[in-house]
Amino acid sequence: MINKGILIVVSGFAGSGKGTLMKALLSQYDNYALSVSATTRSPREGEREGRDYFFVSTEEFERMIENDDLLEYAKYVSNYYGTPKKYVFDKLAEGKDVILEIETQGALKVKEKYPDTLLMFVMPPSVREIYNRLKKRGTETEEVIMQRMKRADEEAAFIDQYDYLVINDVVEDCVRRMHEAITAAHYSADRNMEKIEEVKKQFKEFLKEER
Amino acid sequence: MINKGILIVVSGFAGSGKGTLMKALLSQYDNYALSVSATTRSPREGEREGRDYFFVSTEEFERMIENDDLLEYAKYVSNYYGTPKKYVFDKLAEGKDVILEIETQGALKVKEKYPDTLLMFVMPPSVREIYNRLKKRGTETEEVIMQRMKRADEEAAFIDQYDYLVINDVVEDCVRRMHEAITAAHYSADRNMEKIEEVKKQFKEFLKEER
Repeated sequence: MINKGILIVVSGFAGSGKGTLMKALLSQYDNYALSVSATTRSPREGEREGRDYFFVSTEEFERMIENDDLLEYAKYVSNYYGTPKKYVFDKLAEGKDVILEIETQGALKVKEKYPDTLLMFVMPPSVREIYNRLKKRGTETEEVIMQRMKRADEEAAFIDQYDYLVINDVVEDCVRRMHEAITAAHYSADRNMEKIEEVKKQFKEFLKEER
Repeated sequence: MINKGILIVVSGFAGSGKGTLMKALLSQYDNYALSVSATTRSPREGEREGRDYFFVSTEEFERMIENDDLLEYAKYVSNYYGTPKKYVFDKLAEGKDVILEIETQGALKVKEKYPDTLLMFVMPPSVREIYNRLKKRGTETEEVIMQRMKRADEEAAFIDQYDYLVINDVVEDCVRRMHEAITAAHYSADRNMEKIEEVKKQFKEFLKEER
């Protein structure tokens, strides 16, 4: 009954552990492919071309926009970030469930363009816990952490437009919940309209034969 | 994150094996309760009061209608069938996911009244297989089987209004799919609006404190 892959967008506040969840999801189940974004910003230490990002020039990025090669894109500060279509559609056609990790506004743009998209929002058990996790990283000043908290508050306004809200309390449990929600989506009636039409056709043919 | 139980309606063509599936679902997982219908028809051999049905008189049934004690009801031939509210709401309040096994029109009536209801349609892998399973039972004449097939064809018109379509190819697989779909429903954003409002409130409080 699984016809083709599902497009999934995962969003979440800073500190919600998306990176760890993605890694666990991809290593535990073989039906997933993770979309890689293109960006015009420079690679940071340890980032690898084609794994973390496709690093492209501004000219190349603008040519991709021009050619409608991107599922969605946005500009932050002076850098572009976007999702190349080709990889996503190739993997969906292969039957893979393709995961995009993007922020709320990009997520809603994708859903508008592709209403079959499954939107999943991941968050720590409480707001206080978001702060604690950012603090624990120890890589950012209090000021930057508070900016992130304000940004998170703004993003919270969009959660009710998501399909699923998954709490990241214990990583294994959260990964299982994400997998359950995606698996269930394969059985949703609106993703099985062809199957339903086929059943109706089979009935017509059966009753005609038997008459 | 699981606040309270979910109301689930399972429908399916004759021969789709609903009885077997319900038994397996209830014995394998402890979060389910199966609603028991009330009826005015006489008990058949082997049927037990309170397990298979609540057997009541026509007067009693009509009093239940009068008092709005039923979630839904219908009259077939000269007998009433209906779902007593009390058991369903008691179990939902306890946090159980309550399963109603009713036909398509009753299912849609319940969904209209309680939009949070999860509608699940179960069917054999093909229309031919529905016929084969009815034939294999050996309890009905060809004519009765064909009447059931025609009834099934009519019911097929409603499948696209269900939330999930689950194929009963292998019982264990089908039971797992049903359980996955119900589990995932607990994470759906529209069933977690209170949680989402709580998060927004926590942000406001956090940002106020820190200012």
